[in-house]
Amino acid sequence: MERIPILKMGDFLLVTIQVDLYDQLAENLETDLVNSVKKHNSKGVLIDISSVSIIDSFMGRILGNIGIMSRIMGAQSVIVGMQPAVAMTLVELGLTLTGVSTALNVEKGMELLRSKILLSEGQSDDYDNDTE
Amino acid sequence: MERIPILKMGDFLLVTIQVDLYDQLAENLETDLVNSVKKHNSKGVLIDISSVSIIDSFMGRILGNIGIMSRIMGAQSVIVGMQPAVAMTLVELGLTLTGVSTALNVEKGMELLRSKILLSEGQSDDYDNDTE
Repeated sequence: MERIPILKMGDFLLVTIQVDLYDQLAENLETDLVNSVKKHNSKGVLIDISSVSIIDSFMGRILGNIGIMSRIMGAQSVIVGMQPAVAMTLVELGLTLTGVSTALNVEKGMELLRSKILLSEGQSDDYDNDTE
Repeated sequence: MERIPILKMGDFLLVTIQVDLYDQLAENLETDLVNSVKKHNSKGVLIDISSVSIIDSFMGRILGNIGIMSRIMGAQSVIVGMQPAVAMTLVELGLTLTGVSTALNVEKGMELLRSKILLSEGQSDDYDNDTE
């Protein structure tokens, strides 16, 4: 299992990180993700890290990279499910994930993505938000 | 990382299996899943196995168990993203996953879940399917 699956859900992509990201895996994830954004014309990327309990500077940097890459590709990105200890570690490491949005869980992350997409498209008047 | 995360998405739960399920992990997953179905009053469970490339009789049995448990708890379950080689192995192992529904990807799985839920609730006339 050398690749982290990327799930397409409508306009969004969902990535659940469950394993430690070593170099090759992280590189594959970055490549797969930007390719998927292009292939599916995705507007948003959700990265769930709820099962990540230990984070190091490498993984923190990868998360930041994914956010930047998504933005360059024209997609919004949100990191969801961060554990309190992980947030504390990131700050202690000096990785403040500037420019990366976060949300408490996948549902809140999707709401945030939708509002960010609306904001960037400037069509908040005629959008019918009926997904729940 | 001793637990597989269970993501709540509206009425559904989504589980992405990315690692080999050993005994304790599988047991935790079963327990967590039935508890989550109860807690969130979920109507459907989606199990994504797109990154599972090798399957054995143990994992096949766990997948079957999860389907049966969900049904007993009143939730529908769908396994999505099965690789062709995995399907062939399951049949060769004699595990035909009777009673477990499958779909090609998460989106198709969600559609299948919705139609199964409608069928079981018998309210197909007034349901507004506006999620796409």
